Amino acid sequence: MDQQQQPAALGDMDPEAFRHYGYKMVDWIADYLANGKEYPVLARVKPGEIRGALPIRPPEEPETMEAIMADVDRVLMPGITHWNAPGFLAYFANTGSGPGILGEMLASGLNVNAMLWLTSPAATELEQVTLDWLRQALGLPAPLFGVINDTASSSTLYALAAAREALTDLAIRQKGLAGRADVPRLRIYASQEAHSATDKAAMTLGIGQEGVCKIATDGELRMDAAQLEQAIQRDREEGWRPCAVVATVGTTSTSSIDPVPQIADICEKYGLWLHVDAAYGGSAAIAPEMRRVLDGCERADSLVINPHKWLFTPMDCSVLYTRKPKVLKAAFSLVPEFLRTAQDQDDEVPNLMDYGTSLGRRFRSLKLWMIMRYFGQEGLAARIREHCRMAQWLAQQINATPGYELMAPVHFSLVCFRLHPQGMDDEQQLDELNEDIMNRINASGRFFLSHTRVNDRYTIRVAIGNIRTMEHDIHALWDMVQSPS
Amino acid sequence: MDQQQQPAALGDMDPEAFRHYGYKMVDWIADYLANGKEYPVLARVKPGEIRGALPIRPPEEPETMEAIMADVDRVLMPGITHWNAPGFLAYFANTGSGPGILGEMLASGLNVNAMLWLTSPAATELEQVTLDWLRQALGLPAPLFGVINDTASSSTLYALAAAREALTDLAIRQKGLAGRADVPRLRIYASQEAHSATDKAAMTLGIGQEGVCKIATDGELRMDAAQLEQAIQRDREEGWRPCAVVATVGTTSTSSIDPVPQIADICEKYGLWLHVDAAYGGSAAIAPEMRRVLDGCERADSLVINPHKWLFTPMDCSVLYTRKPKVLKAAFSLVPEFLRTAQDQDDEVPNLMDYGTSLGRRFRSLKLWMIMRYFGQEGLAARIREHCRMAQWLAQQINATPGYELMAPVHFSLVCFRLHPQGMDDEQQLDELNEDIMNRINASGRFFLSHTRVNDRYTIRVAIGNIRTMEHDIHALWDMVQSPS
Repeated sequence: MDQQQQPAALGDMDPEAFRHYGYKMVDWIADYLANGKEYPVLARVKPGEIRGALPIRPPEEPETMEAIMADVDRVLMPGITHWNAPGFLAYFANTGSGPGILGEMLASGLNVNAMLWLTSPAATELEQVTLDWLRQALGLPAPLFGVINDTASSSTLYALAAAREALTDLAIRQKGLAGRADVPRLRIYASQEAHSATDKAAMTLGIGQEGVCKIATDGELRMDAAQLEQAIQRDREEGWRPCAVVATVGTTSTSSIDPVPQIADICEKYGLWLHVDAAYGGSAAIAPEMRRVLDGCERADSLVINPHKWLFTPMDCSVLYTRKPKVLKAAFSLVPEFLRTAQDQDDEVPNLMDYGTSLGRRFRSLKLWMIMRYFGQEGLAARIREHCRMAQWLAQQINATPGYELMAPVHFSLVCFRLHPQGMDDEQQLDELNEDIMNRINASGRFFLSHTRVNDRYTIRVAIGNIRTMEHDIHALWDMVQSPS
Repeated sequence: MDQQQQPAALGDMDPEAFRHYGYKMVDWIADYLANGKEYPVLARVKPGEIRGALPIRPPEEPETMEAIMADVDRVLMPGITHWNAPGFLAYFANTGSGPGILGEMLASGLNVNAMLWLTSPAATELEQVTLDWLRQALGLPAPLFGVINDTASSSTLYALAAAREALTDLAIRQKGLAGRADVPRLRIYASQEAHSATDKAAMTLGIGQEGVCKIATDGELRMDAAQLEQAIQRDREEGWRPCAVVATVGTTSTSSIDPVPQIADICEKYGLWLHVDAAYGGSAAIAPEMRRVLDGCERADSLVINPHKWLFTPMDCSVLYTRKPKVLKAAFSLVPEFLRTAQDQDDEVPNLMDYGTSLGRRFRSLKLWMIMRYFGQEGLAARIREHCRMAQWLAQQINATPGYELMAPVHFSLVCFRLHPQGMDDEQQLDELNEDIMNRINASGRFFLSHTRVNDRYTIRVAIGNIRTMEHDIHALWDMVQSPS
């Protein structure tokens, strides 16, 4: 093809040039996905190395896509940590799957902003339909309002803003929290194992870090419901106003599951908003035999599940469900004249900008819709199931091998363990030993693991969640763990 | 090609199948961009129509990409409002340009999460380099820390959280705002014409809508600096604690420009954080003769510019600049064990999750980097200039034609006007007349305009900003405005 090498004086890249470079980009991605193992999973560059290889000053004149793509390969690729590789087992592994990438391509080509129904009816309605599909697939009862945000941190922030707004006697949206003798200190409860997103939300909302009461966990790292109730009672006596409880289904550290049914009882008894962080664990419920992990969540006021964690959806796609969309809307809706439309009062078609702080909204449901159709509910369940099976296999090896110990129960696809040689009981020495193992494996380039602390002990995490991670990868990992350094 | 029609039992779409469907998707987008005029710009569907055409239940079994893409054409496309079409002149028009779409493709293929430097050094460092390029292109002095967020609403929320945190004696992050006798009511100042993002941020931050003091504007819809100072003095006397001023360069309603140098003087005098909302207008400064629009912004504590508005970048890409990154980080940084890395204390390489609420971060700098290189600084300036020229042409027609009037000065590429026939002075009648004109034009399918109210009068907005909008489009619009209904 005789493509255009330089942009015109005005206008966009010519559509035929886009076609040419688009094919090349597709080839690049297809080759990358086929040959992911050629790269070390964890980037090996030093701080500042990528920056140092890029020009200090912006380009004055146009450059060719060929030059730009050559720099992707030469400059950027050495600095990429490969989240999309089968050997990525850190944090919670995720996937930009084929149909998900195709969905993102289409979304960027259309480039609609789904802030109002009117500004692309298909984007708002597809988001509603797809999230109702997901609700059904997870076994959650209707009606349940869903909206896509960028991250679980945003979803939790919005949920807790709704919880705060639900204290209707305080009129917080209107009057704020500051300088008011009629507003007591507010309290949000979460377990010691809960994600820092709750603390960040409390900081942002003006509730403050001290407004988060951390509830102790039991031997399996689950929130102790009895202690939750005691804390609420004590706070009430001391003049705090309890506001919300954040329960977690699949904590980030070890994937423990808080006792949501008992927590829901307590929330009902004391009139508190129940928010469930199922950002990672919730996706498991798509496999019918795993639905029990969401037991009690049908009683939650709000619930977050991230398809960009374990439903093979490219970043970003976090779903906030709520049984109280009117409260969520009351916390955020504010419609200036230039955004008023004939549909504003139509409950049939929400304006999704009304349910959070962000006005602009990408067409993120497209990728999730394509993934749910391309794999089908059974195909998604099969992949979730296989990840859990691989995690159980690894857990069995750890249990069966002297000198290794599991550090937490394996509920999903996350395995937390450490090497603990017989006779070595100095905790600092054990921490260093395990940190060395993790660093050795990460340095190999074949895998990337991350760590946590369980009961203050250094713990290696193996988070299986990338759709391309196969049994032989986990076998290879176990071999590498055991091989001498 | 003999592609795989169905997904395998496990794993992702086969890379060769991805290549096949990727080509088809590129063809779809290239054809769409070439033939955008075939669709009505504003979707014509009724509320619920798209939803009604989609299955109520999720698919159990896998479906083919052919079936999915057929539904894109059959079901979704009638419900798309075409932001990427040359006739889109509503709100602030934007563009998913060719190099920007290619950048999004690559970002979704790599699917990295740039929360920590370590989790993809290239993503963090390219973001720093690209935002420093943009800073230079806009003529802003170094050092200036930049970070990409999803929207200006988030950027403004984060900036005002930093402003709140800058009241260090109050320790708000730690202690919150509620139930404290030592915290007075807080006040943020913005003009009556400022974007609702400031109100939403105040609501979210616990400052409340009443904590936003709206300053009157002058005859050109600019914040009246003298009234700002009076309001600050009055508030101080009445026990409020002034916290921040939000000035706007290019208001959403009419693109007016607040007197930033005078406002900066006042902020300095009273020790207030100055945040500048240049989400739309800031991009103009890339044309050297337009740099004056950012006069005074070198003194701002923070500044937001959205490349996804007027720098041809697909949604979403909002840049928050700040001269006080340590304060922004103090408002948000919270690092749990599982995210601790060896680089945490390294000022050389920030962990960008520390500068806002969202933990997960897409590789959004890729598209902006590709756009800045593909068009070059001069190419971007030429396109900005051409948009401004077209807006001036339209303004001249309006001024030269009896019965039409400009409703606000044309500083950038936004034209606000109405029909005002001689002798018709009933304001309600004029409102209806102009609403009818806008509705007639929008119903034509050729253009999509939006409206505002200027001095409470219904005003038609023509927002030129899509890279594909050409002179002949604006000529055709002016013909259509004047043609009998």
